[in-house]
Amino acid sequence: MNKKQFSHADIMNFDQRYRAIFINSLGGFKSICLIGTKSKSGLSNLAIFSSIVHIGANPPLVGFIVRPDSAERHTLENILETKFYTLNHIKESFLKNAHQTSARYPSEVSEFEAVKLTEEYSKEFYAPFVRESEVQLGLEFHEKIDLKINGTILIIGEIKEVIIPENCLSEDGFVNLQLAGTLTCSGLDSYHSTSLINRLTYAKPETWPTGF
Amino acid sequence: MNKKQFSHADIMNFDQRYRAIFINSLGGFKSICLIGTKSKSGLSNLAIFSSIVHIGANPPLVGFIVRPDSAERHTLENILETKFYTLNHIKESFLKNAHQTSARYPSEVSEFEAVKLTEEYSKEFYAPFVRESEVQLGLEFHEKIDLKINGTILIIGEIKEVIIPENCLSEDGFVNLQLAGTLTCSGLDSYHSTSLINRLTYAKPETWPTGF
Repeated sequence: MNKKQFSHADIMNFDQRYRAIFINSLGGFKSICLIGTKSKSGLSNLAIFSSIVHIGANPPLVGFIVRPDSAERHTLENILETKFYTLNHIKESFLKNAHQTSARYPSEVSEFEAVKLTEEYSKEFYAPFVRESEVQLGLEFHEKIDLKINGTILIIGEIKEVIIPENCLSEDGFVNLQLAGTLTCSGLDSYHSTSLINRLTYAKPETWPTGF
Repeated sequence: MNKKQFSHADIMNFDQRYRAIFINSLGGFKSICLIGTKSKSGLSNLAIFSSIVHIGANPPLVGFIVRPDSAERHTLENILETKFYTLNHIKESFLKNAHQTSARYPSEVSEFEAVKLTEEYSKEFYAPFVRESEVQLGLEFHEKIDLKINGTILIIGEIKEVIIPENCLSEDGFVNLQLAGTLTCSGLDSYHSTSLINRLTYAKPETWPTGF
């Protein structure tokens, strides 16, 4: 394939929208989740996020990046106010509904209602889960880290509750997200299902990995 | 599907390895890249990372989480020492080589040689790219943020150089990673190719997204 090379100056000279699309594509395929929250006054909120990152397993921590000047600001406000939120994986059957949560609805509108997804509550959690989602995580807010370089914020939370399809749990603890129908995203708006190549054995210097 | 529910206590009672596999699965499909570095003394290093996160487009920033007590520590040391590193997307043709970089090789061994991948240099960058990779990013270190909760570190860098296949660049700036053969990962060791469902139009409250 012919290669195309871009310098930092090239990137900074791009039109702003072009640059946003370009740079968002480069980091690779991303996790996408719907984050469910509810304000103190009782209004539910739902927003799609793709800047989600595994922080650690013990304790079980997940982080995500939020842009406080965007449609994401209600999610941030509700998390800081109530401390609880949910991460809900996205399937093809409600992909357009999920994408539509990124529209800038007025403050008094619940995205659940606007995009036709269903709130679901467990005993422990103030924040709503998405009933249509197969993989649902309940999190408690732990830490907010301001990234001064561009004004975004890293929110770290601890996984307090996990709901998954029974048949997706493997013997060794692996959760088969492909079987659950979980999608991935590239760039700002490109949604993909996945095809398993292989799980590979734990890497050791003296051997070569094999599939299992 | 029958659902299975786990409480925080259930998760904390898991065997450590089981919990690591379980929790690593939950965040969704992840970006995977090979990070290329070179020590001050000239020894190249290559390591696979899956905790990569888009931070922003203007300036173009990417973050990743590093565990300083793991095989990843040389990557961290080299970045802090030399300020430059590369992110290289992973294709099926060299997937096992890429996975094998996670083995704990002795300090004096270059993973490039050990796993049979090829160092490639551009004019501007001290750090090596992976020749076999179709999507190559050159980054300059910007910030190190210690996550006290579990001792991991968030490294933020700025994209200074981008090399992609010419035919993967769309008119609007979107880089078609599926066409480039970029893979995604689930859990610690499950590798997947992708199938495009659709790109969806920018969401606005008064319309419903469509594919394009």
